[in-house]
Amino acid sequence: MRFTSERRLDDGVLEREFALGEIPGILWTPVSASEPAPLILIGHPGGLHKMRPRLVARARHSAEYGFAAATIELPGSGDRPRSAAAEQARADLRRALQAGEPVDEEIVDRLILPLVDTAVPEWQATLDALLPLPEIGGPVGYSGGVIAIGVRLAVVEPRISAAVLFAGSFVPRTLFDEARQVTIPLHVLLQWDDEGNDRQAALDLFDAFGTKEKTLHANMGGHTGVPQFEGDAAIRFFTRHLS
Amino acid sequence: MRFTSERRLDDGVLEREFALGEIPGILWTPVSASEPAPLILIGHPGGLHKMRPRLVARARHSAEYGFAAATIELPGSGDRPRSAAAEQARADLRRALQAGEPVDEEIVDRLILPLVDTAVPEWQATLDALLPLPEIGGPVGYSGGVIAIGVRLAVVEPRISAAVLFAGSFVPRTLFDEARQVTIPLHVLLQWDDEGNDRQAALDLFDAFGTKEKTLHANMGGHTGVPQFEGDAAIRFFTRHLS
Repeated sequence: MRFTSERRLDDGVLEREFALGEIPGILWTPVSASEPAPLILIGHPGGLHKMRPRLVARARHSAEYGFAAATIELPGSGDRPRSAAAEQARADLRRALQAGEPVDEEIVDRLILPLVDTAVPEWQATLDALLPLPEIGGPVGYSGGVIAIGVRLAVVEPRISAAVLFAGSFVPRTLFDEARQVTIPLHVLLQWDDEGNDRQAALDLFDAFGTKEKTLHANMGGHTGVPQFEGDAAIRFFTRHLS
Repeated sequence: MRFTSERRLDDGVLEREFALGEIPGILWTPVSASEPAPLILIGHPGGLHKMRPRLVARARHSAEYGFAAATIELPGSGDRPRSAAAEQARADLRRALQAGEPVDEEIVDRLILPLVDTAVPEWQATLDALLPLPEIGGPVGYSGGVIAIGVRLAVVEPRISAAVLFAGSFVPRTLFDEARQVTIPLHVLLQWDDEGNDRQAALDLFDAFGTKEKTLHANMGGHTGVPQFEGDAAIRFFTRHLS
């Protein structure tokens, strides 16, 4: 990993862009890091540039509570090379949604499973690169983004101690088996009227998680309508489990 | 209404027992009431004496955030006269639950509808009696207890501005029509594995509420296992809507 840029935000947060091989990423560290800060991995749907204002807002909010935050670009998003198979699956999904048809499990599998298989080792490599930095300490949380990536990470990555999951994207049925193996504390967000999501599947997934300590927060409105107070609730969850 | 006793708790909260005609009740007011305090009506399943430690804890927690709190005994509970019909319905419910049978809607109607019809005007009379006190101001919130009482109050009592509802008791189907008429902000608690409750009915009720501003918090565990951090979340909800 090498840092490619550095700037100080007006609230004192240090923002550094980095490259992990070919993968671009961003690291934010709080202004007063007298002790190594716990780290929150900030998930997103892909497209660092487009998502950047929201990612920065989440990172600054985390820094207020003493957390460092980091994110990387997803495979096939932003400036990273596209996969023809993933583009085809995305087009098939869009067509089904626009036609108002139920989304075939086979399309979800083609779209999500290769993404999870590629992305998860990349987030783990990000941890390998960031955790040795003196300003970063454990424990680590994962927050938001593609929920299937969060589920897989929660199962396979022992350095992640707690996760906020956004039940706002499709989950392949095979991930339900992995969900049963999750044992870390979970805080799950659900938008009740999310137009591109299956509410019952989200409730089934929440039910499936194997952990004893899981909370579901459901709010009205569509995919992008998560109320602002949920940001505070998520940070309080991380404060309970990472501090 | 007449006050029948008064004591100062060690955190300065003033606790006064009162009688509203034959109905016993308790009022708690915060220590520093420079301005009239917003009021939270504290619901419970019936039995003031048995519930008292938990009610006092909830009232003290509310007082920390500047809220007054009040509760009254439910019809047919504590020292209040029993209704033979309600006792029969309660016995029928217990029998069905112990036998592991689905609970007949007719039993729920017999148990809950007369309770709601009698209790709701009593809570309204309590507001009539308490709101003129100089240390109490509006707005008013309702919190917890028998959810059917909270639903009816949210519809018929315009002085109630926000409600925390505990989806932990049976709801007659006719109350779903009333739920659609609720327009105040709601914060709904659900225990995912509540042994004496129907999870799907609770999710259906949350879906039915007519208000645009409703949040569901679901946690693991049985009826009495609501995590302590949910008390903080409820107070933050009231602070957003009553302050």
